[in-house]
Amino acid sequence: MITVSAFRYVPPFAQGLVRDLRVRWALEEAGLPYKAMLIGPADQSSEAYRACQPFGQVPVYHEDDLTLFESGSIVLHIGERSEALLPAAADARARAVTWLFCALNTMEVVIQQLSELDLFHPDQEWARQHRPAVEQRVKLRLQELAERLGERGYLDGQFTAGDLMMTTVLRILRHTDLVERVPRLAAYKKRCEARAAFQRFL
Amino acid sequence: MITVSAFRYVPPFAQGLVRDLRVRWALEEAGLPYKAMLIGPADQSSEAYRACQPFGQVPVYHEDDLTLFESGSIVLHIGERSEALLPAAADARARAVTWLFCALNTMEVVIQQLSELDLFHPDQEWARQHRPAVEQRVKLRLQELAERLGERGYLDGQFTAGDLMMTTVLRILRHTDLVERVPRLAAYKKRCEARAAFQRFL
Repeated sequence: MITVSAFRYVPPFAQGLVRDLRVRWALEEAGLPYKAMLIGPADQSSEAYRACQPFGQVPVYHEDDLTLFESGSIVLHIGERSEALLPAAADARARAVTWLFCALNTMEVVIQQLSELDLFHPDQEWARQHRPAVEQRVKLRLQELAERLGERGYLDGQFTAGDLMMTTVLRILRHTDLVERVPRLAAYKKRCEARAAFQRFL
Repeated sequence: MITVSAFRYVPPFAQGLVRDLRVRWALEEAGLPYKAMLIGPADQSSEAYRACQPFGQVPVYHEDDLTLFESGSIVLHIGERSEALLPAAADARARAVTWLFCALNTMEVVIQQLSELDLFHPDQEWARQHRPAVEQRVKLRLQELAERLGERGYLDGQFTAGDLMMTTVLRILRHTDLVERVPRLAAYKKRCEARAAFQRFL
């Protein structure tokens, strides 16, 4: 049986953005049954949980004797079991994996910075001074992504784990209108969120 | 033939830290021949290069008809061809991939923030105010990583692509003594850098 750790309580501003949701969406796409293992702050710092997740974060993924962490790694692991997430052809598969990394390491890395400024430091002077440059980087990345997407429905032809991850990253910007200002990206995000598996797990 | 894009000129503060070096180290570990494709600023913004790398960054990886970007994705792709980087056993392989993601998404994400403050905004007041909190996050992550490493030589027993990636991330802190202040991590980094393949590509 597969289990995925998730927070028992999530404050409203973070609901629908916690990293376990990526894994649950992937499991829905792959049609794999799982159960959530709900944890709280005491679990996060417990020795038993840290043995599975050295940084006390979610998600942790258990499957028989295998324990994994890092949402990117887990989505990839699930993707290897389902062509709904990773194409069988080697080159197309490698490109899908590239988009998964791109979502996390090119896009999220700047998007998360903006989100932290806005959600955790809204009133601090240093954050106010720093924000325009961070927003500018986010806008540039969104524009570059939209240019690459072009008229395609998905980043590399068919929906893959790369699109799944990219969608969860774009969702982090929901407190802004930055995605909506790029109509092609807004339509792409909506297209991915319209998938039955996403609707089911929500 | 495999080609990897790299910058023709790298300023001294970034030498040995550019993302193509991860890929070149991985190719050395796997014993795969390759050549560097040197590029400059004009290439980065050219339509031809952007068709391979939508954000104009390095590295781009070419292998026959396959074009990939994102250092994490490329190292993983190379790793699939060599047990020097990814163990054959499925569970051990999945754990190695988890460490590769951990290096990029748990460690680098905070380490890179500190590095950007120090290298690009050393004199700005907002950066001075923000730095202590960022340094604190880096220290915590390093401590947690060291605790997990424990007495092991490598993160999951034998050297893998996860250790390769983690080493390149720890190197980003070379302008500080934060790694050296955690002797276990300093020894780990030195152990990885002592590998013949790393010495060869340097």
